[in-house]
Amino acid sequence: MWNERLYHDALLTWEGKAKPKRALGRLEELTANLAAVWGSIDVQEVRPGVVVFAADHGVAEEGISAYPKEVTALMLKAFTSGGACISVFCRSIGAKLWVSDVGVDADTVGIPGVSQDKIRKGSVNFLKGPALGENEVQRALEVGERYAGLLAQAGVNLGIGGEMGIGNTTPSAAIIALLLGLAPECVVGRGSGLDPEGYEKKVGVVTRALNERGPDPKDPVSVLSELGGLEIAALAGFYAGLKKRRIPAVLDGVISLAAFLVARLIEPELDKCVFFGHVGREAGSKAVLERLCARPILSLDMALGEGTGAILAASLLMHAWRAFREMATLKDVLRGG
Amino acid sequence: MWNERLYHDALLTWEGKAKPKRALGRLEELTANLAAVWGSIDVQEVRPGVVVFAADHGVAEEGISAYPKEVTALMLKAFTSGGACISVFCRSIGAKLWVSDVGVDADTVGIPGVSQDKIRKGSVNFLKGPALGENEVQRALEVGERYAGLLAQAGVNLGIGGEMGIGNTTPSAAIIALLLGLAPECVVGRGSGLDPEGYEKKVGVVTRALNERGPDPKDPVSVLSELGGLEIAALAGFYAGLKKRRIPAVLDGVISLAAFLVARLIEPELDKCVFFGHVGREAGSKAVLERLCARPILSLDMALGEGTGAILAASLLMHAWRAFREMATLKDVLRGG
Repeated sequence: MWNERLYHDALLTWEGKAKPKRALGRLEELTANLAAVWGSIDVQEVRPGVVVFAADHGVAEEGISAYPKEVTALMLKAFTSGGACISVFCRSIGAKLWVSDVGVDADTVGIPGVSQDKIRKGSVNFLKGPALGENEVQRALEVGERYAGLLAQAGVNLGIGGEMGIGNTTPSAAIIALLLGLAPECVVGRGSGLDPEGYEKKVGVVTRALNERGPDPKDPVSVLSELGGLEIAALAGFYAGLKKRRIPAVLDGVISLAAFLVARLIEPELDKCVFFGHVGREAGSKAVLERLCARPILSLDMALGEGTGAILAASLLMHAWRAFREMATLKDVLRGG
Repeated sequence: MWNERLYHDALLTWEGKAKPKRALGRLEELTANLAAVWGSIDVQEVRPGVVVFAADHGVAEEGISAYPKEVTALMLKAFTSGGACISVFCRSIGAKLWVSDVGVDADTVGIPGVSQDKIRKGSVNFLKGPALGENEVQRALEVGERYAGLLAQAGVNLGIGGEMGIGNTTPSAAIIALLLGLAPECVVGRGSGLDPEGYEKKVGVVTRALNERGPDPKDPVSVLSELGGLEIAALAGFYAGLKKRRIPAVLDGVISLAAFLVARLIEPELDKCVFFGHVGREAGSKAVLERLCARPILSLDMALGEGTGAILAASLLMHAWRAFREMATLKDVLRGG
């Protein structure tokens, strides 16, 4: 699907532009990659769209987050009323924002603008049993897949998945450790602001999860069922769905990367169809990028989630694509045109 | 001038926002720095403005560039007609663009939109004598200073200096080597695409310049007079003039950084009033940032100049400042507001 000929066509087009060879550096490769995924170098502009998937996590009861889980539902209001960081960035950059409640442990029907996609009210604490039933995982994957379709219908050609879910760096760390074969210490971070004691507890929780839960690391549904996270499952379905529609995705921080690792079990050639938007502060973010030898577009020590790092990276792709489309050729300039 | 209280006020404001502490990472420090230079946290929005200073270089006759010097004048047409990369980025980001002929070795009067600020038609080859007279340097500094005033009048509150001048990475390398006490090999790069032979020649030219010219490294006019570059002098005056008006600057690649090193001889507290926009591919860019322990906002292997790296970095500051101004507080969110 990834079109190698168009990738090289795009690089060749850059060669002819009014600038020294390769002078735009990585922006030339990144835009060539857009063309290769789209299957076209004639796309007029980059039109980014963001979906924030929100869900709660039973494992939050283990005290692995600096915030109580009630914050998840409260933040949904901030997303839709425009006061959350991703909302401001979407306004500033000109991206449409969707907000999906795929598993918040509270009633969000009263919040205008929140799509009611709830599979269940939060996942089970994976120290006590599988986080989700396999059927629930399937449905969450379908929610994500459905948003890929909605974005395509809306004319979006660059997809960004964000997430909100108190506690969700813990299942993300467990998924990353499992799928990359890394020790919990290498992937657990301080999340939204754990103290050293909380951090130790979080490492212990991830270690126990990996010992007690036994997912098949080759089976995306098994991984998500055992280690869960409804927003992580929805994101995985979203990334897979975008690829099917030739819409490149810009990945965000550690939760997004965990979802991506699952999504590439569903869509094996996914790696070339995504952009690694930024390297976050969370250890798992660095670990995934290093293991995949992926160089992020941005490195700003962010650790917010919501898709905030990804949308900033996407904004650079927008400008770079405009340069690709609108720059004069060296030939034009040399003949004084 | 740099207001430490406002820097901390801004960080404190970030602490209250609807996000985990420090979750926006470097963007929090960068916006706090905007406030500290402006002397206010109540600025409504970041309004970037770009000036591209263009000039030719006598040393180009030594064959240290992949392009003939005629390209400088031709590119001015591309800047003003909208086909140059910086022109596209300015359109895409919403920044006003000024184009100043401060020393092009051709008549540019016929190019609409080019400001006629010419001091002389290119500098002297500094292997044959001082590149510029001291009086010429003074006048070029004043040109830059004048643009700082023009931008302020136009309501710009974030200044970006770009440049165009075939051969200008060579005087820039010489200035950087002199002012940082580095060997030519550490600061000379391949410019707009030199082959290995051309690169050796360029190292030789810089080495000879440093041996044969004897500028006083503490005297900005002496440095610019001996090693020259009219656009480098104008940029230095521009950066100094922006600081006087409390307008932060975003620095670009190696030529911009050479000008900055001179400007801080004029305005000693300049370092805190600028942003290091990106690390370019040219060796001198990395050398300056390392020596100053400055972490660039972007690292995209760009090597174009024109202010292109700086404007992309500026676009991120625009979004970050909007988040600073428009994000809800955690308090608001917790009371369901």
